[in-house]
Amino acid sequence: MTNSGSDRERPGEFALIAQLFAPLATSAAAFGLADDAAIATPPAGCDLVVTADALVEGVHFFSDDPPEMIAKKALRVNLSDLAAKGCTPAGYLLTLSLPKRIGMRWLQSFVLGLRDDQQEFGISLLGGDTTATPGPLTIAITAFGHVPAGAMLRRAGAKAGDLVFVSGAIGDAGGGLACVKGEGRTLTLDERSFLIRRFQVPEPRTRLGPALIGLASASLDVSDGLLADLGHIAAASQARIEIHAGRLPLSKAAQRLWPDARESVVRAVGAGDDYEIAFTAPPEHHADIMQRAARAGTTVSEIGCVLSGKGIALLDSEGAEIPVKQPGYTHF
Amino acid sequence: MTNSGSDRERPGEFALIAQLFAPLATSAAAFGLADDAAIATPPAGCDLVVTADALVEGVHFFSDDPPEMIAKKALRVNLSDLAAKGCTPAGYLLTLSLPKRIGMRWLQSFVLGLRDDQQEFGISLLGGDTTATPGPLTIAITAFGHVPAGAMLRRAGAKAGDLVFVSGAIGDAGGGLACVKGEGRTLTLDERSFLIRRFQVPEPRTRLGPALIGLASASLDVSDGLLADLGHIAAASQARIEIHAGRLPLSKAAQRLWPDARESVVRAVGAGDDYEIAFTAPPEHHADIMQRAARAGTTVSEIGCVLSGKGIALLDSEGAEIPVKQPGYTHF
Repeated sequence: MTNSGSDRERPGEFALIAQLFAPLATSAAAFGLADDAAIATPPAGCDLVVTADALVEGVHFFSDDPPEMIAKKALRVNLSDLAAKGCTPAGYLLTLSLPKRIGMRWLQSFVLGLRDDQQEFGISLLGGDTTATPGPLTIAITAFGHVPAGAMLRRAGAKAGDLVFVSGAIGDAGGGLACVKGEGRTLTLDERSFLIRRFQVPEPRTRLGPALIGLASASLDVSDGLLADLGHIAAASQARIEIHAGRLPLSKAAQRLWPDARESVVRAVGAGDDYEIAFTAPPEHHADIMQRAARAGTTVSEIGCVLSGKGIALLDSEGAEIPVKQPGYTHF
Repeated sequence: MTNSGSDRERPGEFALIAQLFAPLATSAAAFGLADDAAIATPPAGCDLVVTADALVEGVHFFSDDPPEMIAKKALRVNLSDLAAKGCTPAGYLLTLSLPKRIGMRWLQSFVLGLRDDQQEFGISLLGGDTTATPGPLTIAITAFGHVPAGAMLRRAGAKAGDLVFVSGAIGDAGGGLACVKGEGRTLTLDERSFLIRRFQVPEPRTRLGPALIGLASASLDVSDGLLADLGHIAAASQARIEIHAGRLPLSKAAQRLWPDARESVVRAVGAGDDYEIAFTAPPEHHADIMQRAARAGTTVSEIGCVLSGKGIALLDSEGAEIPVKQPGYTHF
């Protein structure tokens, strides 16, 4: 690992926690990481929502990725889940399994990444665990958020007649991964950097998510691929979802990477790691959604509709189904 | 891994969750693991307390340990933390990083272990994550418990004049590890089994912990070794703790393993993994503590006292300090 190869010294577990991680425990409820547990009671009238996601070196990130970037990705994939559930993020627990080669310099950079994102998203480290491992670096995060009691946005809840929306643009992360793997040689450096950045550091829609409460009927974050994830909403809601290929929001860089319109759509809906919010809502909320999204600084596109029936389909401009072979990403 | 060598087939991530783990999500707030997050709001008047502990194959357990046992240990080390904080356990999130060799049969046994302990301790799986790993099996658990608001037992709070107590017996787990490594050949099979079992499957004091609220001034679970852990209470409480060697509760099996009285005490206070509760309390609560402990089905021993000053000391019957070289276990 480039940043740690020359620095194999690392203090003991207690010193590591006191020096590096205690300054991240900005909430009083974390007791400066000097106790065995933390308090995560939500404010009165709010539910506490919890989610967990882990990243494994060699599976979810490359060994020589910058430590700050790995830290941000590990945190943000969790914040993205919370956002799509309508939650305001509050805190997280971090469990690190550290190979011997990870030294102090690497850890200091990792902590800087966490610190930046704690400030950006207004959250505190609440606790966790550090252990040695003979294997790859493994980062397991449990994140907490608050939502008005009973208002958590669910996968279930989409109804026939609802519209389907997605935030931002889809396919950029898939495009970024394709660039890392050697595609996109005709793109400009800026276009390639844009796509790769979207792959490496997701932008969780933490301002948009809570703004959808009272409007969205079902919601999740796009991590497995838009079509697979909307398929989860369709299944949980016992409904059918149809998406119009021509309405899918693709960035200019993604369109330049995949100039064939049909290919671009098929690639975009099958690629994972978008970390946008896909949601459904009754048509009467359309204007409110667009207003609140604008206030949250995020674009939102209407891309399809919910019908009676089951399953998910991607339709071309003639209304014919476009076959998609790769319905999303799974780690096994 | 013995149980999985012949069974390399494993369904995809979604099927794995639906088949194996969804039945463990007995709380309605887990949405059958069919959503992206769960709700962990505590009852009115209670704080939610969170803790995290991870186990890594080859570091915290052996590759050929029975899967049910690994599952129980992973869960119980977290429940022990909650108990020592005065909490009633409620639920947990489980993040599994699975090497390819872990097959369905292994996972089924692992899930049986979790199921048994969920029933024994009255808790539900709330969520988590499963990922592939090219490295060792890694099990990260975040556990939740409830405690009356503001009443969580802390490391800080011990005052000069308080007495020091510990539940159960100490040193058994250290003795069990010593037996695994080849010591204790003169012990009976029952004695060896008893010690090894205490090492492999801790008994979290989940009934005693909540009973100490209103009585204990400081509390933690003994995981690093009694002397090291009481040192944490002394440091957090800015006080000095003195322990009387002759009062330490040692099981008959541990005394048979280490027949020399001084060696047995030194080994016992330095060994980790006891998962007993060590706590301090004002002398006037002595009788109440013993009564409540009896009702909780756990013995409690008074082993020392809290003084002004700092640090921790183990004293012999003459009041002279017994030097202890290994003040507890740390993974680095």
